[in-house]
Amino acid sequence: MNRQDDFAMLQRQENGAPLAYLDSASTSQKPTVVLEAMRAFYQKSNANVHRGNYQLAEEATEAYEGARKTIADALKVPSSTIIFTKSTTDGLNLVAQSFALSEVQPGDEILLTVAEHHANLLPWQRVAQQKGARLRFVDLNANGEIDWAAFEKKLNQKTKLVAFAHVSNVLGSVAPVKALTRLAHAYGATVVVDGAQAIGHFPVDLKDLDVDFYAFSGHKALGPTGIGVLYGKSALLEEMAPVQLGGEMIETVTKTSATFAKSPFKFEAGTPNIAGAIGLARAMTYLEEIGLSQIEKEEQGLLSYALKELAKLPEIVIYGPLSAARRSGLIAFNVRGVHPHDVGTILDMDGLTLRAGQHCAQPLMTALGVSSTLRLSFSVYSQKEEIDRLILSLKRVLEVFS
Amino acid sequence: MNRQDDFAMLQRQENGAPLAYLDSASTSQKPTVVLEAMRAFYQKSNANVHRGNYQLAEEATEAYEGARKTIADALKVPSSTIIFTKSTTDGLNLVAQSFALSEVQPGDEILLTVAEHHANLLPWQRVAQQKGARLRFVDLNANGEIDWAAFEKKLNQKTKLVAFAHVSNVLGSVAPVKALTRLAHAYGATVVVDGAQAIGHFPVDLKDLDVDFYAFSGHKALGPTGIGVLYGKSALLEEMAPVQLGGEMIETVTKTSATFAKSPFKFEAGTPNIAGAIGLARAMTYLEEIGLSQIEKEEQGLLSYALKELAKLPEIVIYGPLSAARRSGLIAFNVRGVHPHDVGTILDMDGLTLRAGQHCAQPLMTALGVSSTLRLSFSVYSQKEEIDRLILSLKRVLEVFS
Repeated sequence: MNRQDDFAMLQRQENGAPLAYLDSASTSQKPTVVLEAMRAFYQKSNANVHRGNYQLAEEATEAYEGARKTIADALKVPSSTIIFTKSTTDGLNLVAQSFALSEVQPGDEILLTVAEHHANLLPWQRVAQQKGARLRFVDLNANGEIDWAAFEKKLNQKTKLVAFAHVSNVLGSVAPVKALTRLAHAYGATVVVDGAQAIGHFPVDLKDLDVDFYAFSGHKALGPTGIGVLYGKSALLEEMAPVQLGGEMIETVTKTSATFAKSPFKFEAGTPNIAGAIGLARAMTYLEEIGLSQIEKEEQGLLSYALKELAKLPEIVIYGPLSAARRSGLIAFNVRGVHPHDVGTILDMDGLTLRAGQHCAQPLMTALGVSSTLRLSFSVYSQKEEIDRLILSLKRVLEVFS
Repeated sequence: MNRQDDFAMLQRQENGAPLAYLDSASTSQKPTVVLEAMRAFYQKSNANVHRGNYQLAEEATEAYEGARKTIADALKVPSSTIIFTKSTTDGLNLVAQSFALSEVQPGDEILLTVAEHHANLLPWQRVAQQKGARLRFVDLNANGEIDWAAFEKKLNQKTKLVAFAHVSNVLGSVAPVKALTRLAHAYGATVVVDGAQAIGHFPVDLKDLDVDFYAFSGHKALGPTGIGVLYGKSALLEEMAPVQLGGEMIETVTKTSATFAKSPFKFEAGTPNIAGAIGLARAMTYLEEIGLSQIEKEEQGLLSYALKELAKLPEIVIYGPLSAARRSGLIAFNVRGVHPHDVGTILDMDGLTLRAGQHCAQPLMTALGVSSTLRLSFSVYSQKEEIDRLILSLKRVLEVFS
C-alpha cells in the first residue's frame, strides 16, 4: 500500500486532473487514522474533561491528557509545559500578552528577522509600541539565512526577547536554533521560536534546543484545524499570568477575586478542543511511525530534485538557499516577467495547487523586491512525479507568456 | 428511526448499563451528520481559507464562509457580525480585552449577577481591577431569577457594561434578555450575554433581543469542540481593536507597523478552525431541521416531568425555579445529607452520568450555601425513560444512605 492511500483527499481531482497538492505549508492533508481517532472519541468517549466524576468523563480526561503526554514525549519535554492553543498564532500572541507585556520595559529591545510571518511580527510590534521598546531586525545573508555574525552584533544587554522561525515559510531556510538560542541566552534574552513549518518535517527535540517558547499548529502537521501547541519552560510558565480567564483554570473564586491553577491548566480557560488534541496526538504518532528522520530524508530528496529541475529553467527565480541541505519543506519562486497569480492559475488548470501570494510576510516581500511569489511545499505524501508535472506545467506557462 | 439513533455515542454502555447521558450542559453529544460534515471537508475539500487562489482553496473558503452565513442566518444577524472563536470563554474574553478594557473608565460600574459562570465573571473582575472600575451584583429572587426591580435599581449613569447568562448553568433560569437589555440601554450600558446554555435549546433571534454581544460554544449545541461564536453589533466591532495579531487579519504590514482588515476577519488571526466551523454550521442546520420551537417544547416536557418526580422525594433539594416554564435544559439539585459526589458515583454505577461539582460558579455555590450540587441536563436526544431511571437510582441512594 502506498503512503498516499492513507490520505483520502489525494484521490481528488483538480480541474479535471489528478490533484497534485503542493501547498502543505498552508495546511497539510490529514491521514485517515487522524480522522478516525477524532471520530472514535466523539462516538465512543465524548464527554467534557476535568469536570465530571463519572466513568465516561474520566475516560475523556484520560484521552485528552494522554494526547498532551504523547505530544510532550515526542518533543522531549514534560506534559506540564505543553499548552493546547488554537494555532501557532494563538500561542505566539499568548507569549506576547502574558510574558512580553510584563517583562519588556521601556528602552528594551526585541530582536526579529525581516523574514518573520506576520504572526511572529505583529504581536511584537504591539508589545514594542505599548512598552516603549525597540524592534530590531537581523539582516539575512544572500541565501536568505540568518547571518550569525549579524545576529550576534544585534544582541546586547538591552535585548529582552528574540523571536524567529525555525523554518522560514517563504525562504525555506532552517534556523540554527540551538546555536542562536545559546547566543541569545548569553545576553539574557528570552527565545521564542515559531515552529509552524518545522513540526512534521524533521525531528524536533525542544529539550536539546533549549528554547524558552516554541509554538506550532496542528493543521500543518497532519492534524486537524483549531488546535495548536505552545511549549514554554516551566519556570517561565509558573510566573506568567493567564491571558484568558474562565472555567477550569482556577483554584478559588469569590465575587471579586480569583486564584489560578498551575500550568498548563491556567492557560486553558474553558472547554478545550478535546477532539482536536486527540487528533493532533494521533498525527504525531503517525509521523513517528514513519520516522521523522525518514521524513526529513525523503523531503531532502524532493527538495534536491525540485531545485535541480527548477534551475534548468532560466526564467525561474528561486528565493532562499540553493542547497537542499539548508532547506526544509518548501521552495518559493517566481517566473521572470509573469505575475505569480497568473502562473498559479495555469498550474491549477493542470491540477497543481501552489500558493501564489505574500505568504503573510509582507516585510520580506519588500526586502526581496517582489509583490508576491509562488510557493511549492511538501509533506509526507508528496511525490517526485508531482515535481515532474510542475516542471512540465511551468514550461507551458513559459510558452503561453513567451 | 429514533432521533437517538442519530447519536452513535448513545449506544455506549456506562458501568455495564445502557448510557443515560444526562450531562449535556457540560458538553452535548454529536449527531453523525455533524461528524460526517467535518470528515467530508477533510477528505474532499481540505485546504486553507482566504489564502490560495486555486480552485480547491476557493472551495474551502466557500465552505468556511458558508458556515458563517448559516450560523448568521439562524441567529438573524449579518455574517460580518459573526466571529469564530474557540469557545464561549474565548468570546467573552475577547469582549473584555478588546471592548471593555478600552471603554471602561475609573469609577465606572460593571453589573453582573452572582450566578455567573466563571467565564462571565473573571474577565470582568480583571477589567475592574485594571481600570479602577467597580463590580456590582444584581440580587436574585428566591427562585434564582434576576429580580427586575433589583436589576433596575443597580443601573445608573456609571453602568458601562452589563453581563449575564441567557440561561444560568446551575439554576436553569432563563433571563428576560430583551427586557433587561432595553433597561440597560436606557442607561447607556453595553449588554454582553453568555449564551452557552441557550443555543440549541430554543429559538434565539439576536436582532430581536438587541444585545450588543452574545457568545456561545459549538460543543454544547451538538457541534464539535474547539469552535465558538461571538456576535457583536457592527458599530461596536468596527471600533474595536483586534486582540490577537497575525496572518490574514491585516491590510498592510511593514517592519514596524500594520493596518487591519474589517470585521470579522480582523478578529480571526491565523488559520481558523475551518472544519470546526463547518461542523457547527451542520449542527445548527440539524437543530433547525427538528425545529428549535419543537426542541423547546420537548425539553419543557422533560423538565416538567423531572421536576414533578424529583419533588416526590422529600430528601431532594432543587435549586432555581420550580416551574418548568421558567427554566431551560437543566436542573441542579442535592440529596439532603449526602455529598453530591457520593450521589453521582452511585448514579454512575447505574449508567447515569450527572455532573456533581461547583459548575464553574463558586460565588453562586457560596450564595446557595452549598459546596456543590448535582446537575441533570438535557439535549435533543434526552428521554423520559432516563428520568425514570434517575428517580429509581436516587431511591437506591436514599436506601444506601438511610
